[in-house]
Amino acid sequence: MRLPLLAAVCCALLACAARRHCAEAAKARHFKWEISNMFWSPDCEEKVVIGINGQFPGPTIRARAGDTIHVELKNALHTEGVVIHWHGIRQIGTPWADGTAAISQCAINPEETFTYRFVVDKVLTTTEVLITNCLNVRGKRSTETEEFCSWLQPGTYFYHGHYGMQRAAGLYGSLIVDVTQGEEEPFKYDGELNLLLSDWYHESIHTQMVALSSKPFRWIGEPQSLLINGRGQFNCSMAAAHTPGATQCAAVNRQCAPVVLPVQPNKTYRLRVASTTSLASLNLAIGNHKLTVVEADGNYVDPFVVDDIDIYSGDSYSVLLTTDQDPSSNYWVSVGVRGRQPKTAPALAVLNYRPNGASKLPALAPPATPAWDDYEHSKAFTYRIRAHAGTPPPPATADRRIELLNTQNRMDGHIKWSINNVSMVLPATPYLGSLKLGLKSTLTAARPAEMFSRGYDVTLPPANPNTTVGDNVYVLAHNTTVDVVLQNANALAHNTSEVHPWHLHGHDFWVLGYGDGAYRGDAADEARLNLRDPPLRNTAVIFPYGWTALRFVADNPGVWAFHCHIEPHLHMGMGVVFAEAVDLVGKVPKQAVSCGATASALMNGDHL
Amino acid sequence: MRLPLLAAVCCALLACAARRHCAEAAKARHFKWEISNMFWSPDCEEKVVIGINGQFPGPTIRARAGDTIHVELKNALHTEGVVIHWHGIRQIGTPWADGTAAISQCAINPEETFTYRFVVDKVLTTTEVLITNCLNVRGKRSTETEEFCSWLQPGTYFYHGHYGMQRAAGLYGSLIVDVTQGEEEPFKYDGELNLLLSDWYHESIHTQMVALSSKPFRWIGEPQSLLINGRGQFNCSMAAAHTPGATQCAAVNRQCAPVVLPVQPNKTYRLRVASTTSLASLNLAIGNHKLTVVEADGNYVDPFVVDDIDIYSGDSYSVLLTTDQDPSSNYWVSVGVRGRQPKTAPALAVLNYRPNGASKLPALAPPATPAWDDYEHSKAFTYRIRAHAGTPPPPATADRRIELLNTQNRMDGHIKWSINNVSMVLPATPYLGSLKLGLKSTLTAARPAEMFSRGYDVTLPPANPNTTVGDNVYVLAHNTTVDVVLQNANALAHNTSEVHPWHLHGHDFWVLGYGDGAYRGDAADEARLNLRDPPLRNTAVIFPYGWTALRFVADNPGVWAFHCHIEPHLHMGMGVVFAEAVDLVGKVPKQAVSCGATASALMNGDHL
Repeated sequence: MRLPLLAAVCCALLACAARRHCAEAAKARHFKWEISNMFWSPDCEEKVVIGINGQFPGPTIRARAGDTIHVELKNALHTEGVVIHWHGIRQIGTPWADGTAAISQCAINPEETFTYRFVVDKVLTTTEVLITNCLNVRGKRSTETEEFCSWLQPGTYFYHGHYGMQRAAGLYGSLIVDVTQGEEEPFKYDGELNLLLSDWYHESIHTQMVALSSKPFRWIGEPQSLLINGRGQFNCSMAAAHTPGATQCAAVNRQCAPVVLPVQPNKTYRLRVASTTSLASLNLAIGNHKLTVVEADGNYVDPFVVDDIDIYSGDSYSVLLTTDQDPSSNYWVSVGVRGRQPKTAPALAVLNYRPNGASKLPALAPPATPAWDDYEHSKAFTYRIRAHAGTPPPPATADRRIELLNTQNRMDGHIKWSINNVSMVLPATPYLGSLKLGLKSTLTAARPAEMFSRGYDVTLPPANPNTTVGDNVYVLAHNTTVDVVLQNANALAHNTSEVHPWHLHGHDFWVLGYGDGAYRGDAADEARLNLRDPPLRNTAVIFPYGWTALRFVADNPGVWAFHCHIEPHLHMGMGVVFAEAVDLVGKVPKQAVSCGATASALMNGDHL
Repeated sequence: MRLPLLAAVCCALLACAARRHCAEAAKARHFKWEISNMFWSPDCEEKVVIGINGQFPGPTIRARAGDTIHVELKNALHTEGVVIHWHGIRQIGTPWADGTAAISQCAINPEETFTYRFVVDKVLTTTEVLITNCLNVRGKRSTETEEFCSWLQPGTYFYHGHYGMQRAAGLYGSLIVDVTQGEEEPFKYDGELNLLLSDWYHESIHTQMVALSSKPFRWIGEPQSLLINGRGQFNCSMAAAHTPGATQCAAVNRQCAPVVLPVQPNKTYRLRVASTTSLASLNLAIGNHKLTVVEADGNYVDPFVVDDIDIYSGDSYSVLLTTDQDPSSNYWVSVGVRGRQPKTAPALAVLNYRPNGASKLPALAPPATPAWDDYEHSKAFTYRIRAHAGTPPPPATADRRIELLNTQNRMDGHIKWSINNVSMVLPATPYLGSLKLGLKSTLTAARPAEMFSRGYDVTLPPANPNTTVGDNVYVLAHNTTVDVVLQNANALAHNTSEVHPWHLHGHDFWVLGYGDGAYRGDAADEARLNLRDPPLRNTAVIFPYGWTALRFVADNPGVWAFHCHIEPHLHMGMGVVFAEAVDLVGKVPKQAVSCGATASALMNGDHL
């Protein structure tokens, strides 16, 4: 069942032979992880990282679409809780396994073991067209009906910590979902390479969190290094011959050895690239090679060819690369910073044309990263991303529109990021448990604002720079279609507006369009929306001073975070929470909500 | 009711007018604390500390004996649990408030609030003589009878974190209990000074914990500074004129300003001194002044005069100081390292004879700390401590003797401290809850060893250097008298044996005696025991290659840690747990045990 293609849904709705085949082939895949702090030298400077089973980055999970992943996770940190978010996985029926502390579950305490269980990656039909199709065949909506309106989705995903800033401490790894046995991708390749990109600070996340929470506020600055598969070079360059003033990196130990990507000449490779950076927006290019973009966030896209790709924190892509260059040479893979004045040197890897030696330095200079503030370049890339033929189109209209203004604010001497002037603070008791039990006391009764003032001047610092903190829970009616307009604005300082990649849990959304300046919802703005072939994604960027319009169907009962994927921005409150049909959520393991007010209620006889 | 004097018990047993008076005067004292990480410069180098209400050290709690302390504690750390142990407070009837993570309660999760409630400091009669007296008057034992066999105990205490190595991150403060109104101490003084001593590392506790848990093991080294009331001098000396090679400390900001103790000439001051060091054993001396020791660990002692006092981590003392020296001068208070080759400069404070200026440097050099390995000096001080007249004597015989051999061992590439060859690892579910609910699955069934081999050669590294980890829970029968012999030995390296101050929760013990070499329990060893006037304490040291014999009555239902108070040693497993009559423990707040297997059991309908 090659999907997300309408044909497959039809298959499911009819005899569904392919589907039965998938079900038979689906496997349970068991992993046993222990999470602990350990010394590691990601960029040859020894620091403390959070590792999994003694590895950094964590082990790659590889599965086939439809498989069920079981991760039995022991927290071996000394005093810190931990959770793991499976970024891009929809968690249909298992919202308690989404791994967001204080939202979908209680942080797992030290010495405790918690088992995540979820399917990779089942998608519900979300368009009215498809739902109508289903209902026409199956009659009244029921769980069984919904089962028939689902498909499986292979893709490039990753996982990471989602408590405090633990992702920035190195708690992440790759999660790659292959097509089901016998199925084919809509493109061909001879081999595969995997690049998990991140950035790295020498200061501990504890100190970073204190700095960001301090009064007066202290900014943590730019990362010391960029990492490719957990390896980087600090204060030296592998390409010093081409980099004025740089020192050539010495031979290094295993932990920070440069990444080598071995390839054969005249073959096509699928390069999977995902970014779990804390702060940096990245650009990836490979000397002399073109890249054909074929997948974004687990969704096939209309293929297009570029020299380089922008990749924001939370994004994942597959690009095809043909090794059609002079085979006597190796080539640099270069990853540099976009969107902020770069103070971090590019990370380099070697595309190693075999049988050249892996240590043979490329003859050409590493490809230059486009200027950090060349937003036209960024927009050209981002706007070019369109859905692959056969991707379900969005419902033609939305039932509700939520406009979220992103501002930087002050609160009691702190600096915060706010959404419609509320900065998100997570509660002691996770939303999933407290909403399922109806514990009104744990949440503020007030509903967050649905939109911001039409007159808001996004080109200036906020007229009222003061903000408040709150829950920011938007309750979405089941199966309604929701539009979200993310509106960027000027930060506290004049002439400053940052890039923010927003990531939605529990869903893909259609990215309907982008615009510069304030969104007004007028005919001109409407004309910018693409209802024909908008890409499905789980992460979308808002450009400085601009807006981004998204659409999704609230068809996944659970409580889902929606937030800027920049770790310090999230820490400073840049997020909201969507609660969807929590009454329809099935069995939640008690252990997932065994803390705070939920634990008290359950001990007093309440039932989940 | 001046106590612990037998007369007071008699008072209680008869009309108990005084006792009623106390009860009337007793107050509830409410504190609201928020615990968070913050930047601080304890020794003028800025680091992250754990503070309380923005203060480091935490606020001093001051109360009268018999008062009930309520501390409503909000954990505002980002991802770490927290607990507070009230060091030296017996927690009669409130074992859940002892503040030991994984023993008496679940760590309080971030954003949660937990309220500690306990009386300072009620003591049960513990000698058979007194219990017999009580029973003779009151008949059958009952809760009411036991109430009449109690007294109140003022004294010098402190509090600190007891989860991971959070104490070493600065989570501590003073807890001072005055006599009840109208009562008098058995000594006179005109004023009072308080010194809370600690040591300070520049490396974070997270890195320290990783180092100690690493394979290969990494020792954390000696602290960078010693602190007096949270203030120290790193890389400079306030007395550089007297310290060859030292740089005079510059004028400093408030956080690391030197401590000044203002006094009037020809008065007597009570100097309260407590040590919450992570590693260092200390010695305190004041230039030209004699010190009269009058209290140790909240118990009055037979007064004696010394030039300096040794103070181990976990100890507290009161000493009287008479300002009988040349009043035109100020004098140095000097705190230096004992028991380990000192690599940390002494901490200095100024005894400021008013009306001299506080900044007038003392004319004399700071008193020299005795040589770190002059154990004869240490033993002379420690052995001299005897009970104050009227302190209850110990029961003449014990019902059980537990001999605990302290060894340093290897385990799977790690280095551990072990007791009778088991290194303590704490469980996910606190003992108090799991034992009260009878959750057998959470504890190993095997009982730890009651003694070690008589042939063990304490002068050599362990013949079998390998150890295991375990629960180390000793179940003590209610109201039995227990002797504990702590036996020191050679560590893994030849010719090395360290000082270990052991601290018992929930009790004072009588320190019956000390000896060099292996304890054999023979007539010669018995002859070394003092049954006449042994001091009551909660912390006792074992000297290198020596033993220390303690006695206490297991009359306090609860689960109590007993461990080396050196933070890295405890982290490396140097402790055991005593479980006493957990079936007699009264109501335990559910929140205290709302984690792990206890939470599961309570959610499944079990009752505490």
